[in-house]
Amino acid sequence: MKLYESRRAPNPRRVRIFMAEKGIDLSQIERIEVDIAKGENLSPDYRQMNPMGGVPVLELDDGQFLSESVAICRYFEVLHPEPPLMGRSAEQQAIIEMWNRRMELNLLMPVAMAFRHGSGYFADREVVCADYGAASLNNASRMFGFLDRHLANNEYIAGDDFTIADITALVSIDFARVIKLAIAEEQSYLARWHAVVSARASARA
Amino acid sequence: MKLYESRRAPNPRRVRIFMAEKGIDLSQIERIEVDIAKGENLSPDYRQMNPMGGVPVLELDDGQFLSESVAICRYFEVLHPEPPLMGRSAEQQAIIEMWNRRMELNLLMPVAMAFRHGSGYFADREVVCADYGAASLNNASRMFGFLDRHLANNEYIAGDDFTIADITALVSIDFARVIKLAIAEEQSYLARWHAVVSARASARA
Repeated sequence: MKLYESRRAPNPRRVRIFMAEKGIDLSQIERIEVDIAKGENLSPDYRQMNPMGGVPVLELDDGQFLSESVAICRYFEVLHPEPPLMGRSAEQQAIIEMWNRRMELNLLMPVAMAFRHGSGYFADREVVCADYGAASLNNASRMFGFLDRHLANNEYIAGDDFTIADITALVSIDFARVIKLAIAEEQSYLARWHAVVSARASARA
Repeated sequence: MKLYESRRAPNPRRVRIFMAEKGIDLSQIERIEVDIAKGENLSPDYRQMNPMGGVPVLELDDGQFLSESVAICRYFEVLHPEPPLMGRSAEQQAIIEMWNRRMELNLLMPVAMAFRHGSGYFADREVVCADYGAASLNNASRMFGFLDRHLANNEYIAGDDFTIADITALVSIDFARVIKLAIAEEQSYLARWHAVVSARASARA
């Protein structure tokens, strides 16, 4: 098994944390650094592995390539059901997937869009729109407020248990340093949650 | 069970097709039309059901609300495993989720962004950036080309079987009428696939 990743990008970190929570020893897996800034992920060789050009990519022992972070997580969830990070019953699975998708679409996505359209970091490869970047920063900031209120009544993002939704939220909030967005002093519930999930050993994976 | 939806929006159609493929009789389910153009989905009452404001929302018999289309589909997949639309083995599940996410992020999303930022349809509620809309239209158009090449060697989007990835792709391609993007005459593989999936009874759900 090989993992193609970028140390500082949010999506590979999601997969590393998920694997660590499953008790998979990351030091036993060959890990290849992909230089996104240089566009290595857009090369023809890389696109043979993942035509969409994203990181990470997991190469299975039979030579197949898996991409899309949550699809890679799903692979490990089914192979290693304990501890469950995506739920057990139909209802649990649906609620956790709902919250994970909310974290992706309403937190990670605005943070990423604020970064791309605010910094011009990928101006060599995509259209940059400063107004859209500013609106995305505003949306990300409002989501921090929503989560603070949500976590006043919930131990974790999807309820009582630590799940993949917490991993996506943690990675998104930590990545928000690139848009200079941080948990505000008055957001004490969000800060409490952030301290708890950051203290897990997996957060350093 | 109640389904809050909008007849012409792509995401509720995804869920309806998925349910129809599972053999669930949609006429037995109470369906409530939400007027997105009027912003009914942003009202305080609606946000009690789904704080993110999206359609559809599934209200369960115990009063819980499920949102995020794929989370709703997951609920039905676990309750009604036959026929499988999200795979069985770890590898199948991961590959189908990978392809479904590619259809969401690289097809449905650019189509939606091209519509919003090209038409100003939601200018009353979000920043509109024409350059971003034009770039999104270009990305959606390139994805049509990618899919045509992909379907030259694959019966369905995720391989040999009809899956949720086909549902997401069908709904996205049909919704692309709003940005005046259609399957080109020379895209014969994409056209072949589109005819096959459109001929399924579920496509009319």
